[in-house]
Amino acid sequence: MARMTVTALEGVPEVEPGDDLATLLVDAASELLDGDIVVVASKVVSKAEGRAVRGRRRDDVIAEETIDVVARRGDLQIVRTRHGLVLAAAGVDSSNVEPGVLLPLPLDPDASASALRARLQALCGVGIGVVISDTAGRPWRVGQTDIAIGAAGVTPVVDLAGTVDRQGNELHVTAPAVADEVAAAAQLVMSKAAGTPFAVVRGLSHLVIAPDGPGARSIVRRAEDDLFRSGS
Amino acid sequence: MARMTVTALEGVPEVEPGDDLATLLVDAASELLDGDIVVVASKVVSKAEGRAVRGRRRDDVIAEETIDVVARRGDLQIVRTRHGLVLAAAGVDSSNVEPGVLLPLPLDPDASASALRARLQALCGVGIGVVISDTAGRPWRVGQTDIAIGAAGVTPVVDLAGTVDRQGNELHVTAPAVADEVAAAAQLVMSKAAGTPFAVVRGLSHLVIAPDGPGARSIVRRAEDDLFRSGS
Repeated sequence: MARMTVTALEGVPEVEPGDDLATLLVDAASELLDGDIVVVASKVVSKAEGRAVRGRRRDDVIAEETIDVVARRGDLQIVRTRHGLVLAAAGVDSSNVEPGVLLPLPLDPDASASALRARLQALCGVGIGVVISDTAGRPWRVGQTDIAIGAAGVTPVVDLAGTVDRQGNELHVTAPAVADEVAAAAQLVMSKAAGTPFAVVRGLSHLVIAPDGPGARSIVRRAEDDLFRSGS
Repeated sequence: MARMTVTALEGVPEVEPGDDLATLLVDAASELLDGDIVVVASKVVSKAEGRAVRGRRRDDVIAEETIDVVARRGDLQIVRTRHGLVLAAAGVDSSNVEPGVLLPLPLDPDASASALRARLQALCGVGIGVVISDTAGRPWRVGQTDIAIGAAGVTPVVDLAGTVDRQGNELHVTAPAVADEVAAAAQLVMSKAAGTPFAVVRGLSHLVIAPDGPGARSIVRRAEDDLFRSGS
């Protein structure tokens, strides 16, 4: 029977610059099994990587992360970040940090995922996938869902082209963005307010791959494929 | 410990017009517990409700479901449906149906969810949430994720405005679209090709509410709040 479990890890201390997330994660998990996917909130990756800035104007920090502004209304800026992600305020976070501190996204979330994966696999001796998650709005939907901004050892998008349904029709359009769905599933158990930045997804070992793979950058739609680009 | 399990139900027969989905679901589930959320692929809801059409032109069927065309490229039409959903081909499906058959979305997916919920609760005697899922693309992301197009007895969006993080900052922007995340989580275990149109999500009873609630229509962003509307 197809089943997955998603567990938020409790008892994780506040993450400080220089912390080894792999050790924190392994200490919080009762065990990690071959084929598990760990989901890590981008916030703690940024904190561990020393991305926090103090005493800077929020608009300046957002501008540094921005390639172009996609939409604007009042104080709300939705921008395309250096990673190609379309996020409110470029993903710069001021929640769950000390007052006056701003937390931009990791510089290269796929590289962060890859490094964390290597450390985790060295500590545990099993094959593990890593997804780094952040929160994104949607133009036509209320509220936000978590998406994968970094990934290593996880298939980001399953291309069903060429597979056939029970009636023999080809399922040619469907390409589930499973790394985003893993991030969304993890959000359901990772409460931001409660400080649970790690979740373990078990039961999706078919999505865990030996190489790091194309990463979450492969889920970013190329600008030339964007049917809704401003001015197009 | 915060944990959820998501289980795809196996052994579900092909759904025919007039079938009672609640009976099929209860027959396939080993048990349903108070606080479970069942996720149902919109395809089987449409089939049971007799929405399948034969011998019609695909473009005509799509046009009947369409309020306006949001984007177009070659054969691909992304439209706003009668429900306010922005979907490729208005969600009209020709996979997993007999050749020549087209399957539009349910006319009123929240009403479908409500009716299914009432039947399930009568059969099982416990409080259950229902999400009807479908597959949607995203303008800036490759691939698709499942979203909630119908919901009953489930909080669609958790408004965290006014809640406070561990540092005392208000989490004023965050409003997780949990019904969409539940649909996305279920997609990870519901393989389209394998014919598993039902999943049971256990462990999120805090999202199950006694009234049917505002439904998935409340996740549809109003046109006047759409920062990306054509021509705006």
